[in-house]
Amino acid sequence: MSPYIKKSVLAMQGYTPGEQPTDPQVIKLNTNESPYPPSPAVQKALQSLKVETLRLYPDPVSLALRRKIAELHGGTPDNVFIGNGSDETLALCSRAFVEDNGAIGYFEPSYSLYPVLAQIRTVTARPVALGPDFAWAMPADYQASLFFMTTPNAPTGIQYPKTAIRAFCARFPGVIVLDEAYVDFAREHCMDLAMECDNVLVLRTLSKSYALAGLRLGYVVGAAPLIESLFKIKDSYNVDRITQATALAALSDQAHMRALVARIKATRRQTIADLEQMGFRVFPSETNFLWVKPPRISAADLYRHLREQNILVRYFPGPRTQDYLRITIGTDEQMQALVKAARVLVKAG
Amino acid sequence: MSPYIKKSVLAMQGYTPGEQPTDPQVIKLNTNESPYPPSPAVQKALQSLKVETLRLYPDPVSLALRRKIAELHGGTPDNVFIGNGSDETLALCSRAFVEDNGAIGYFEPSYSLYPVLAQIRTVTARPVALGPDFAWAMPADYQASLFFMTTPNAPTGIQYPKTAIRAFCARFPGVIVLDEAYVDFAREHCMDLAMECDNVLVLRTLSKSYALAGLRLGYVVGAAPLIESLFKIKDSYNVDRITQATALAALSDQAHMRALVARIKATRRQTIADLEQMGFRVFPSETNFLWVKPPRISAADLYRHLREQNILVRYFPGPRTQDYLRITIGTDEQMQALVKAARVLVKAG
Repeated sequence: MSPYIKKSVLAMQGYTPGEQPTDPQVIKLNTNESPYPPSPAVQKALQSLKVETLRLYPDPVSLALRRKIAELHGGTPDNVFIGNGSDETLALCSRAFVEDNGAIGYFEPSYSLYPVLAQIRTVTARPVALGPDFAWAMPADYQASLFFMTTPNAPTGIQYPKTAIRAFCARFPGVIVLDEAYVDFAREHCMDLAMECDNVLVLRTLSKSYALAGLRLGYVVGAAPLIESLFKIKDSYNVDRITQATALAALSDQAHMRALVARIKATRRQTIADLEQMGFRVFPSETNFLWVKPPRISAADLYRHLREQNILVRYFPGPRTQDYLRITIGTDEQMQALVKAARVLVKAG
Repeated sequence: MSPYIKKSVLAMQGYTPGEQPTDPQVIKLNTNESPYPPSPAVQKALQSLKVETLRLYPDPVSLALRRKIAELHGGTPDNVFIGNGSDETLALCSRAFVEDNGAIGYFEPSYSLYPVLAQIRTVTARPVALGPDFAWAMPADYQASLFFMTTPNAPTGIQYPKTAIRAFCARFPGVIVLDEAYVDFAREHCMDLAMECDNVLVLRTLSKSYALAGLRLGYVVGAAPLIESLFKIKDSYNVDRITQATALAALSDQAHMRALVARIKATRRQTIADLEQMGFRVFPSETNFLWVKPPRISAADLYRHLREQNILVRYFPGPRTQDYLRITIGTDEQMQALVKAARVLVKAG
């Protein structure tokens, strides 16, 4: 026991990211990455980058990127914050909007980073259990300083009714972060709430629909006072020059993003049909992954057997999630391999 | 006054980075960047980067980089933490090593981010005033949870006696972060203290001697339990794929770094001679900048007049620093332009 480390940090486990195997033979359906490459504009931006300029600090406030994002979603650059991945912006929110005696709320199950952020801040974590079938279930008197809501949710893929979200935002006394990491794969989004409400931030990422998980770029849209407070406490130069340049290129190629999303949604439809035909329960997905319950075999066993065949999906132990698997939508070929392997295992199960 | 923002954040100013002008005519001697480009190996690493791989998350623990750094400094990868710039690692230290009722110490004047980090944590800031001529002056009974020590110091350029640092580390009850951002320009370093002591971390950056301020890469070397605690609370994927690849290339070209340092030290010697000949007081610099007091003209006036001539240096208002300027060592041509402009202004002053 080191006497130098904060007790709450010593007691922590930290967040466990999904496995990143280096074996190229592995069919990797475990961390919701895109199976397709990013826009060719990213390659061009990298090629035209003057390496000499890397000797200079980046723009500390990522203004060119914020202008582009304001152009995409409305508002002005004062309504936009840029982070080193969504994770940085979530952590900054936990520090900007929660007093030391405050509380951080989130649905359970949801992104497992949220309770870790409450632990790091040593503030109260106030989870809300989702209803049967992981549906919206917010107590009428629920209060917290900050509520993190992934919508569509992970790991369930379910999008909450916008009327319920809107009503919650109107009555909640704190800040609501709508983490729309997967929203490009969904039918609707809540960006208008970020523009209308003074307590709502909408968070987006380039990791999923823009196929740039390796880049680390997340952004937040919302009321200027909230955005300003994130700028105050961020690391001085939080987004590097290469990331600013390549992210700008990716965001400027909306057509490529929409084409990737269309392909993934088509594969999603086919995979749902194949799995349901086999007897899987598949939850309605508005994301680039499926949340499924296998027939005749436990989720844990199916996870292990798939892994033995070099197909990696995500299994979350715990009472609420242990009966399900989260499966990223890959290419058609990858999903056919998954379906084929699952068919044998489910029959044998 | 937004009711949603933490009171201590509302009250904060935040850290003000040095100005980043976009006019290429400006002679930029204000933020201690390198006037020379990074290693050609960085360009090669960028060119050989497979853009397709950006769809995948980066290695969350930057293992290849940590192996390289352990090879450079001794120890194992368990002794190395990689951050999104030094600033991220400083902020993580403020969260890992200070209880809510603890205190953060630092010399004054020093890096102006340190008090900001104490504000963000809402813990006590316990500055130690440097002695006359900014020399080491540590009270014998001084205590804190964490002490940030830039050595060589900024903005003064002075390196503290290693015997004093060693004795302080041996008796200090908390963690000491020796921020060696500028140490490649100095005569000696303290990396051995990080290896010997269980409460000392040495922090390095690629921003100065490796000419990669635009990249954001800092690293920490020290005892494994301290390093492990930083990993626990960092953002999941804090260093992106491109940064990991290019930083590895830069660190693998030690010869380029040493050549850059040698050039800057030669220019430093000449600039010191020129300024002293003019009557400037120049403090002994172990860094890539000079801390100077002009003759016959106030530092503030000299700063303004240089700025009118498109020469940007750094001026820090405040009782302890207002009589001095911090001047980054640029190319020989840039420093000759500075000396020439200063000569006229000092005569007129």
